[in-house]
Amino acid sequence: MADTNTSRCDLAIEAHEMLAMGKASDFSINGVKVEETEHNNYIKITRIKVDNESGARELGKPMGNYITIEMPARFYGQQEVYEEMCKACACELKSITDEMLLSQNDTVLVVGLGNDQITADALGPRVVDSLMITRHLKKYIPDEIDEGIRPLCAIAPGVLGTTGMETEEIVRSLAHEINPKLVVVIDALCSGSVERINTTVQLTDTGITPGGGVGNKRKTINAETLGVPVVAVGVPTVVDAATIAAAGMDIVMNKRNDMNIPRDEANRRDWIRSEIGEELGSMIVAPKDVDSIIGDIASVIANGINISMHEGITLADVDRYK
Amino acid sequence: MADTNTSRCDLAIEAHEMLAMGKASDFSINGVKVEETEHNNYIKITRIKVDNESGARELGKPMGNYITIEMPARFYGQQEVYEEMCKACACELKSITDEMLLSQNDTVLVVGLGNDQITADALGPRVVDSLMITRHLKKYIPDEIDEGIRPLCAIAPGVLGTTGMETEEIVRSLAHEINPKLVVVIDALCSGSVERINTTVQLTDTGITPGGGVGNKRKTINAETLGVPVVAVGVPTVVDAATIAAAGMDIVMNKRNDMNIPRDEANRRDWIRSEIGEELGSMIVAPKDVDSIIGDIASVIANGINISMHEGITLADVDRYK
Amino acid sequence: MADTNTSRCDLAIEAHEMLAMGKASDFSINGVKVEETEHNNYIKITRIKVDNESGARELGKPMGNYITIEMPARFYGQQEVYEEMCKACACELKSITDEMLLSQNDTVLVVGLGNDQITADALGPRVVDSLMITRHLKKYIPDEIDEGIRPLCAIAPGVLGTTGMETEEIVRSLAHEINPKLVVVIDALCSGSVERINTTVQLTDTGITPGGGVGNKRKTINAETLGVPVVAVGVPTVVDAATIAAAGMDIVMNKRNDMNIPRDEANRRDWIRSEIGEELGSMIVAPKDVDSIIGDIASVIANGINISMHEGITLADVDRYK
Amino acid sequence: MADTNTSRCDLAIEAHEMLAMGKASDFSINGVKVEETEHNNYIKITRIKVDNESGARELGKPMGNYITIEMPARFYGQQEVYEEMCKACACELKSITDEMLLSQNDTVLVVGLGNDQITADALGPRVVDSLMITRHLKKYIPDEIDEGIRPLCAIAPGVLGTTGMETEEIVRSLAHEINPKLVVVIDALCSGSVERINTTVQLTDTGITPGGGVGNKRKTINAETLGVPVVAVGVPTVVDAATIAAAGMDIVMNKRNDMNIPRDEANRRDWIRSEIGEELGSMIVAPKDVDSIIGDIASVIANGINISMHEGITLADVDRYK
Repeated sequence: MADTNTSRCDLAIEAHEMLAMGKASDFSINGVKVEETEHNNYIKITRIKVDNESGARELGKPMGNYITIEMPARFYGQQEVYEEMCKACACELKSITDEMLLSQNDTVLVVGLGNDQITADALGPRVVDSLMITRHLKKYIPDEIDEGIRPLCAIAPGVLGTTGMETEEIVRSLAHEINPKLVVVIDALCSGSVERINTTVQLTDTGITPGGGVGNKRKTINAETLGVPVVAVGVPTVVDAATIAAAGMDIVMNKRNDMNIPRDEANRRDWIRSEIGEELGSMIVAPKDVDSIIGDIASVIANGINISMHEGITLADVDRYK
Repeated sequence: MADTNTSRCDLAIEAHEMLAMGKASDFSINGVKVEETEHNNYIKITRIKVDNESGARELGKPMGNYITIEMPARFYGQQEVYEEMCKACACELKSITDEMLLSQNDTVLVVGLGNDQITADALGPRVVDSLMITRHLKKYIPDEIDEGIRPLCAIAPGVLGTTGMETEEIVRSLAHEINPKLVVVIDALCSGSVERINTTVQLTDTGITPGGGVGNKRKTINAETLGVPVVAVGVPTVVDAATIAAAGMDIVMNKRNDMNIPRDEANRRDWIRSEIGEELGSMIVAPKDVDSIIGDIASVIANGINISMHEGITLADVDRYK
Repeated sequence: MADTNTSRCDLAIEAHEMLAMGKASDFSINGVKVEETEHNNYIKITRIKVDNESGARELGKPMGNYITIEMPARFYGQQEVYEEMCKACACELKSITDEMLLSQNDTVLVVGLGNDQITADALGPRVVDSLMITRHLKKYIPDEIDEGIRPLCAIAPGVLGTTGMETEEIVRSLAHEINPKLVVVIDALCSGSVERINTTVQLTDTGITPGGGVGNKRKTINAETLGVPVVAVGVPTVVDAATIAAAGMDIVMNKRNDMNIPRDEANRRDWIRSEIGEELGSMIVAPKDVDSIIGDIASVIANGINISMHEGITLADVDRYK
Repeated sequence: MADTNTSRCDLAIEAHEMLAMGKASDFSINGVKVEETEHNNYIKITRIKVDNESGARELGKPMGNYITIEMPARFYGQQEVYEEMCKACACELKSITDEMLLSQNDTVLVVGLGNDQITADALGPRVVDSLMITRHLKKYIPDEIDEGIRPLCAIAPGVLGTTGMETEEIVRSLAHEINPKLVVVIDALCSGSVERINTTVQLTDTGITPGGGVGNKRKTINAETLGVPVVAVGVPTVVDAATIAAAGMDIVMNKRNDMNIPRDEANRRDWIRSEIGEELGSMIVAPKDVDSIIGDIASVIANGINISMHEGITLADVDRYK
């Protein structure tokens, strides 16, 4: 699970919302471009581009692209929304890799971060389980494999606490050995808002920092540390208790005028966190039905990768990899 | 998962704490006796006896016995605490069944409520998996089974949404067929306080009401509906977001004097719930590491049942059923 | 897992093949009608009707109907075969229930026999997990449920060794309580031939006898014991080592003339079993990839039940319940 | 799962038995030393040392040490046998690593081969799940970790079909990055005899060849390919149908004199395989209760590794890692 700390949230879109709170509607940050589109009236795609150091500093996010795909609160059982999410993931992944000039024969390595023994943290391993793995087939029986199939390989390496090795160590050594032209890293994130749990997918070309086990933050997995382009795919699956408490307090406070607390919303969040964080904040929680939700979200991402990475695979094949 | 509604919590001890909030230390309710003991300085046992209708009304709990076993926040990896919890569960179960004059040859039926596909709700099924089942052995090969072994049978019937049958219907028809002298029902509960999640075990002879699926509350499983004594064993494994938010707000408010909200703590909880409940309250959450926690708690309860129900089984055998 | 003993196999079609071995092609048994059809060149359906006591004695099977649906050795990944199997299961189930004059509003109870902790024996529980359960919806919110949806309920009660109760006791008491017009029982079978493992589905209106735990055979679950019509659905998922050994010996012996062993094939099988059974026979084995196979077969049967039991559900909905 | 082909079995002890069949009791091979000991009358340890090329050729096994630990057919539920197996594994592993002059501060990397989605092949991943992982603790918080704890790290990399990468590629690149002084590789084996399934543990310093996915055998993982000493731990968990058939035929043939087949037992096995192998041989089977067995064996090996690798861990800690 990617790390989060109290002053920073995992999603660029949340960081931007924080800064925009209480500002005029034409608020903008120098070096940060934001563009929103909507699909079928229910899928919202936000593209944030951080293109200079000043913007990166202000947003608290490295320079690069952040694409957020948001769906309505719960899509379960709605086949149409499910398929549109798969297509949206595939389409946005494709746009990123097209920009990287990835050719159809270039090898791609997918890394599913997280602990498969903790359901809320098992998004990465579950995605890896549903990928259409082909690198070995392209190598050993190339004549039997369609041209539209790319050499794809994948691993779910486990987490520091169960391997004793930094994930970055494992991925870097594999990248050197396998020599992929792109590394796609999947991880569950900690959300800064209750509403985004399991409804938001973030794609970014800036890499990812796995969650810490022993105090410190882990080494970042990005183009610089691996020496190969990295796309990180993240979904908020958990939230800390402090965020829930702060959300509840927001609701109450928005209805009242008699409380002597920071009126500026961004400051208020920090204030609430600092007041209650110590006692409640360490508890990370997931929705009760996390078991089935993680499976659904993993399917969306696996289908997105299968369709975008293999030209020969289309939405008609989606159900085969559900 | 046993049902809870906003004005009532599953645990009698929590209901009592609510009423005692802000009252003098010698506060007491007519018809409600409360007795606390401590084991080894870290296990706290509270026995609440509701012995008249007035007490039942005030506490909001049926007449009967409620025993709460609480351990320190997290006992994982501490073998000693784990063993003491097993012993405490066994001991308290034994005291209840002794009061029921259960003899060693009487058949006992254990029912593990809950949905085994949702980890946070799978406590009942997990306990059933670890029981020492003997009714068939006592029946078909009695000479090979020790005298200290009681006829024990068990079932994890599933939940209304997956069976289409009221749990009460299933258990009642089984009780008529099998004719046990005692039914022990296990269920995961919804907690009214963050601290009690997975640290508290409640035993009661008043029965249990499984959680609702389609709007209404389910039929209660108790001595009256089954026609046989019932002991319910419950552990809070989840909490609703409103409880977390309220807990956070409590912490803040306790530090400040400038907020115009109810100063009486019991009223304040209800007020907070009513203010934020609608928007946040429907989300039920579990700690992120619920997968391993449920296994540990299920072991504690299964060992407690195995030791208390089979005279011939002692703590030395505990690890065999871990 | 349904019981099998050395002189009898679970499938009527195998019992018939044994008797027909080495006989003329027009071999027939008085009181036993056999009819074969083929679907799409790859699904073979055999309908055996045992319509008098003499036929039942000779075949070693109670009077009634036995429908066997066989598919090509392995259908995995072949979406078309998978869908045809679902349709064939639905169609044959429908033909049986039509004969029973079951109306669309009659309640049906599905019972998934077997142990969900042993993958090869978990067919029944897995089917139950994928059913479209509706009895509670028809009862509590009838106006919101389509007319084409029947009241369907289901349970996976576990096995004698884990419950301490005869499966027949559990199902009979439930049938009395719920009062269904039909009970469908699902179980994994022990195969009398290696080729039939996981490729054959048998439907019968004669009931089923769960596998024994403590020496004896369990009580039969059928129309007589339950007091309500029963359809049993079985799939051979395991085979005993003696069957594999005998199959191997058959192959060798069919190529050679110099062995002084019974030339009559039916007798030879028994002879081989008696010679080697004691030392090898107790080992029951399953294909190594049983984990994924059981999931596929369970989907076929669950879809077959969903489509045949709910008029309003068609093949287009199949994937939603995969 | 380590590869096996029809003319060769995975276990050195089986290869030796084959050659010894029908020979005089003082049969010996030049360059192959065999030494047997027994523990507590029920655990048999056989040490085979292949110390020249002629012996390696004749046995069909590379030069090196092969230690086989065999227990009575089924030890389940027998706590004493379980503990003795743990101790025997620890003791033999220790003797191998002592010979390698491994010091207590040298890092050891454990690799659990196999596919965790196929229970019979999941031995390696299950062992990794139960190890006491410490490399990260020794690195980041060395002062809090006992001296008797070695830096241990581990990974379950998956199989060629699910990763698209040769296991040897993954392990070699990790070994270069992590620089361990020893690599311990765990894998499920295919047995050449029915009796050895799940009752035999083989330790060897000659490495291991993972099972093939696409036709060819995979690259061997050994001291030569990794550049670091390798200990392979293997347990036969499956058997091919041809082996079962041959075993059955052996039993019959040993009782009869009228069959014109090879009298020499080693040749007879090959003959039987060639006769029936094509039609039956491709089916790999596992005992029906493989789910629980694999867990028990994985515990034995994990405890063996934990005790032998960490000086500070003793048998008293065994149950904590069960």
